[in-house]
Amino acid sequence: MTGEPRIGDVVGELLRDTLAVATGVGPRPLVGGRLPRPVIEIIERDDGLINGAPAAPYLDPPAWWQPYDRRAVDRARGETLDVGVGAGRIALALQERGVPVTGLDTSAGALDVCRRRGVRRLVHGTVDTHVADGARYDTFLMLGNNLGLFEGRERAPGLLAALAALARPGAQIIAHGTDPYGTRDPVHTAYHERNRRRGRLGGQLRLRLRYRELATEWFDYLVCSPDEFAELVRGSAWQLTDVDDRDAPYYLATLRLTG
Amino acid sequence: MTGEPRIGDVVGELLRDTLAVATGVGPRPLVGGRLPRPVIEIIERDDGLINGAPAAPYLDPPAWWQPYDRRAVDRARGETLDVGVGAGRIALALQERGVPVTGLDTSAGALDVCRRRGVRRLVHGTVDTHVADGARYDTFLMLGNNLGLFEGRERAPGLLAALAALARPGAQIIAHGTDPYGTRDPVHTAYHERNRRRGRLGGQLRLRLRYRELATEWFDYLVCSPDEFAELVRGSAWQLTDVDDRDAPYYLATLRLTG
Repeated sequence: MTGEPRIGDVVGELLRDTLAVATGVGPRPLVGGRLPRPVIEIIERDDGLINGAPAAPYLDPPAWWQPYDRRAVDRARGETLDVGVGAGRIALALQERGVPVTGLDTSAGALDVCRRRGVRRLVHGTVDTHVADGARYDTFLMLGNNLGLFEGRERAPGLLAALAALARPGAQIIAHGTDPYGTRDPVHTAYHERNRRRGRLGGQLRLRLRYRELATEWFDYLVCSPDEFAELVRGSAWQLTDVDDRDAPYYLATLRLTG
Repeated sequence: MTGEPRIGDVVGELLRDTLAVATGVGPRPLVGGRLPRPVIEIIERDDGLINGAPAAPYLDPPAWWQPYDRRAVDRARGETLDVGVGAGRIALALQERGVPVTGLDTSAGALDVCRRRGVRRLVHGTVDTHVADGARYDTFLMLGNNLGLFEGRERAPGLLAALAALARPGAQIIAHGTDPYGTRDPVHTAYHERNRRRGRLGGQLRLRLRYRELATEWFDYLVCSPDEFAELVRGSAWQLTDVDDRDAPYYLATLRLTG
């Protein structure tokens, strides 16, 4: 038998353990019950590709960030919604600067970690469910590659509409994306090609996250070029006004609410 | 569709990339084709548990090792076979001391990494296939938890017999194991319990390794208590003469050829 992992709050468990390892407080994974084990986030793609990445950077202070994250935070103004707040590193930096920020996440465990780290305003849910709460924002941050939440041609219009419903006049979205098409790695180029043959965007990844005995459901997550993103935004209430690709292949896309 | 990984030389690819990241020479995994990505070894257990661990320590010099590894190497004498030589950290340390050492591995890629790092004597194969080559040894090292290669009650007698066939009179085996039964983690205690119900040793793990698009076949790998190991050795050509558990739950088991 080869058992399947259990569906659960992967991000929450991962961040809880990451915080426990960093602080030395609370139960945490130990090799052989003795040596601290670094917390590794595992990402599985639907072609069998698997990658691990240390989770510790989710707690990093601004001094350790990549430069695009610092530039993104510099652009936040007014009531700000941190979409996919995770362990709260962005929200904490904004609080420190006096920017009124709310952290949004679907992971109850992530919100718990944020609370313990001092993030004050937190909402459990999605952009769509948050519309009914009545709060409205001037800035939406989708950092940590969370431009990926636009998923592809099917999901993007709905997410852009939900963000517009949450927006004050003149609001902006700042989304961090990655242009995936510079690679010559055949594992990736074959995946992009297969996606296109099936009518998907090349970098429309089908992923699940795994941590210990837990997995998420499979979900779409978009890595796309700025041109592809511009195409997704066309016809929505938003206009793509700037692409900062100083750290290419990473970029910050800024959208403004029109009308 | 959710594709399965391809069966391939996981250890070889992993160690090749680990060496490329460490040396900056050769193609290596980059996040977004730009930032170096740490190489992570992924271990999947047949109950759905998954863990990642940084591969960089496979290259560590003795100064960075755990103390039990240094004590094990201190005990090597005479013609030495490093069983599962990996990236060669143990073999290189022995060469440096003038101990005649041969590295054995089933991974062609691992042997390639060893060669490039300066390990001089290398054999591609298993303990069983190596018997026909005619070489005979005074010391067998099974470090890096490679007591696990005894697998369980079915495999242990055959592996002990093959090691005896490779042994000179008075030869010793030094094997590094981990006692898994100190944990209170229900993910592990339930696994041990299930194993016992199926007639297996509690810590007889069913694993596969994964790296990028590759996986190994599923294989058994043993973590057991010193008492369980003593039971496995009983009736073989070997005698368990010492268990050094100064770094419990890790231990070094020393076996001597009898007669």
